[in-house]
Amino acid sequence: MSDTSDSAVRLYIDQHRDTFLSDLAEWLRIPSVSAQPEHAGDVRRSAEWLAAALAETGFPVTEVWPTPGAPAVYAEWPAEDSSAPTVLVYGHHDVQPAAREDGWDSDPFEPLFRDGRLYARGAADDKGQVFFHTLGVRAHLAATGRTAPAVTLKLLIEGEEESGSPHFRALVEEHADRLAADVVIVSDTGMWSETTPTVCTGMRGLAECEIRLDGPDQDIHSGSFGGAVPNPATVAARIAGALHDADERVTIPGFYDGITPLSPAERELFAELPFDEKSWLSTAHSHATLGESGYTTLERIWARPTAEVNGIGGGYQGPGGKTIIPSSATLKLTFRLVAGQDASAVEVAVSRWVADRVPAGIRYDIAFTGSTRPCLTPLDHPALRSVVRSMSRAFDGQKIRFTREGGSGPAADLQDVLGAPVLFLGISVPSDGWHAPNEKVEVDLLLKGVETAAHLWDDLATALS
Amino acid sequence: MSDTSDSAVRLYIDQHRDTFLSDLAEWLRIPSVSAQPEHAGDVRRSAEWLAAALAETGFPVTEVWPTPGAPAVYAEWPAEDSSAPTVLVYGHHDVQPAAREDGWDSDPFEPLFRDGRLYARGAADDKGQVFFHTLGVRAHLAATGRTAPAVTLKLLIEGEEESGSPHFRALVEEHADRLAADVVIVSDTGMWSETTPTVCTGMRGLAECEIRLDGPDQDIHSGSFGGAVPNPATVAARIAGALHDADERVTIPGFYDGITPLSPAERELFAELPFDEKSWLSTAHSHATLGESGYTTLERIWARPTAEVNGIGGGYQGPGGKTIIPSSATLKLTFRLVAGQDASAVEVAVSRWVADRVPAGIRYDIAFTGSTRPCLTPLDHPALRSVVRSMSRAFDGQKIRFTREGGSGPAADLQDVLGAPVLFLGISVPSDGWHAPNEKVEVDLLLKGVETAAHLWDDLATALS
Repeated sequence: MSDTSDSAVRLYIDQHRDTFLSDLAEWLRIPSVSAQPEHAGDVRRSAEWLAAALAETGFPVTEVWPTPGAPAVYAEWPAEDSSAPTVLVYGHHDVQPAAREDGWDSDPFEPLFRDGRLYARGAADDKGQVFFHTLGVRAHLAATGRTAPAVTLKLLIEGEEESGSPHFRALVEEHADRLAADVVIVSDTGMWSETTPTVCTGMRGLAECEIRLDGPDQDIHSGSFGGAVPNPATVAARIAGALHDADERVTIPGFYDGITPLSPAERELFAELPFDEKSWLSTAHSHATLGESGYTTLERIWARPTAEVNGIGGGYQGPGGKTIIPSSATLKLTFRLVAGQDASAVEVAVSRWVADRVPAGIRYDIAFTGSTRPCLTPLDHPALRSVVRSMSRAFDGQKIRFTREGGSGPAADLQDVLGAPVLFLGISVPSDGWHAPNEKVEVDLLLKGVETAAHLWDDLATALS
Repeated sequence: MSDTSDSAVRLYIDQHRDTFLSDLAEWLRIPSVSAQPEHAGDVRRSAEWLAAALAETGFPVTEVWPTPGAPAVYAEWPAEDSSAPTVLVYGHHDVQPAAREDGWDSDPFEPLFRDGRLYARGAADDKGQVFFHTLGVRAHLAATGRTAPAVTLKLLIEGEEESGSPHFRALVEEHADRLAADVVIVSDTGMWSETTPTVCTGMRGLAECEIRLDGPDQDIHSGSFGGAVPNPATVAARIAGALHDADERVTIPGFYDGITPLSPAERELFAELPFDEKSWLSTAHSHATLGESGYTTLERIWARPTAEVNGIGGGYQGPGGKTIIPSSATLKLTFRLVAGQDASAVEVAVSRWVADRVPAGIRYDIAFTGSTRPCLTPLDHPALRSVVRSMSRAFDGQKIRFTREGGSGPAADLQDVLGAPVLFLGISVPSDGWHAPNEKVEVDLLLKGVETAAHLWDDLATALS
């Protein structure tokens, strides 16, 4: 953690940055789109390419792990000291679909360096952020004169994240022994902005729910029968329309039970971020904010649970009108959960509340189709302090602030199955355009990711021992 | 109105029933499906066939009236006495689509007589009920020795009723002078049952409304943004879900303004009908009744206004889930109206009420896409008494009871444009299967329709003079 070490890391990175970037560009040329069956071969090729690159980096163990879908890559580099802590890095090598005609200014699978940016599908999400760990660990070894990392380093880079990680939990359960770690570092998130480096400290959980309501056995005439029989579309609307009260609080009894309240310190940390509502709304493609009374927008998306209507449908939706009482309606709801909430308890509460709202004559089915736990790293966790210190060194001593992530991810499965705390290390910024045309990564930030990773293993070895 | 006249009418009908039925069968062979462009020629052929049949019946004026869609047929037979009242009969010559594979036991356009029934598309809706007026007026002349009917008889038989009568009002407005009448008889409804002959005394009106709600400019991630921006699907649900209170009364302020209340006498008449909830539910393909507190099922569908969700849609409706806040949602609502309600006032009330429910950040558009006035014949109207008397004679002195129709129809345009009261004369029964496979008409009832029509013109001439 000395200035000498910092200079040595920077020197090494400077000497190897060109090779690093051209290797990454080679990987980005493989269109590993997991959602498109015609790219299944490319996703496999991407896994093999990465395994080879990790072997060349020096990982003594590199394996391609098959799943019923796309393969994951596993690599392991034991520490010299067998009592050193173990760190598991998570990322993914598959990418979102992309085509020139979606609005790309250049071929999404022909990486382009321009004005300090690298444009390509996967540049930020997530190949760039996986790949910074290769040069990172090499710089760590070069700067410290070690032949193996200060921690036992494991990498699990999945191939189906952009397809909803359907086989990920099973994969982690199958290999739980080999994946065992003291801490998990997820490199698949971002920072507040180019000028405000941040560490993410948690993600919301998720409970998914689908409700089907059946009324008349067929669509019936709303003139002949309207006003005298229950209408399943009306019932669906009553359920979805009653999810929130006038303060936009979720009305389901028990929904907020057990929540770890936001501490005044955390609220202050959120408030320190240079939040600009106008630019946030532009990112949200939205025209006004609306949410739970008593909380700021950042608190609402990061630290408060929600009930959201993802889809509602019933009856006639074509052009013009049709005077029917529809025979059925459906409702797709998701609930975002925060630390302290229990997905199963939420599911029970939702079921009871829905049951109370379905009148006689409407048959219904409610299915909970999946849940993900929330994860949250306490601000005083020693591993989190290590990430903050390492990042601050890479960012020239800048203060590192904290964010959270409103979404939910497979990180929670790692926390669940492996019983290890999950931390986040990412250098991507909102302008990188994840899932959008002209995805890019800022080359300077990518190298700061390398630098952070180069500092992290020594720091963690000390902090966790 | 003598027994002699009754016998003469029956004799004439007996002598001509076979020709009448075989002529009707010939007309039913023409597949005049107005909703299917490939049958446009058949609808024209049906109009020409009917015009020729009416000419043969004796109508001195028969014309095919073109519209931008399918043609209507107009016929006129002036009374001998130029001071006699004028009656306009309304019906339609187009039919619903039908195909053997929909579940028909025989070809829908190859009429089949079996067990006292005539099976064919259009047998009851509406060719059979139009056609009974041909033999009806002939029997009237034969029994009374007249050479022209006791009233000036006009027929307007449209060709687009099964396609929503898109050009009907314009047609009526264009020909308002020629269509002028003291009373309109609509022969396009039915009776309570084979054993309970009834006259319909009114139809509900209708106001149609479509609401589009736009939130984010594109679907956005419900994890990243959920809980902090308004969701148009939730807003649509809140609107549709708030239409009714716990008593199933419509909550929109002013909605019930001006309604002519149901009189105790009318409620008693409804209550006299042999209503069986179980069999009504089976007709409604429904599993329970639900409606405005304080009213019976028949009162709810015939005499009370409604707000009904015909369609609601927003967000993801495919298999599985999708964690989005949708960019838009739509809502299709119809309001059934009863006598005393004003469609324009209802539209204004709905607009205001919806406006109050749309939060900042959601842009919306509300369109009222059409309205139909309610129509209601007072129970003591002399023309209604004529219909009841004529029907009672045809039905061997049985008591004729009263129903209403929950639906809405072009009859209201006739009432509106011509300023004439609308009465209903139909002999179809619920088991006839309008719009369904194996549509049929009971031949005995069809002939009672002929008989009623044969008595009606004399009775009306006296009652209205």
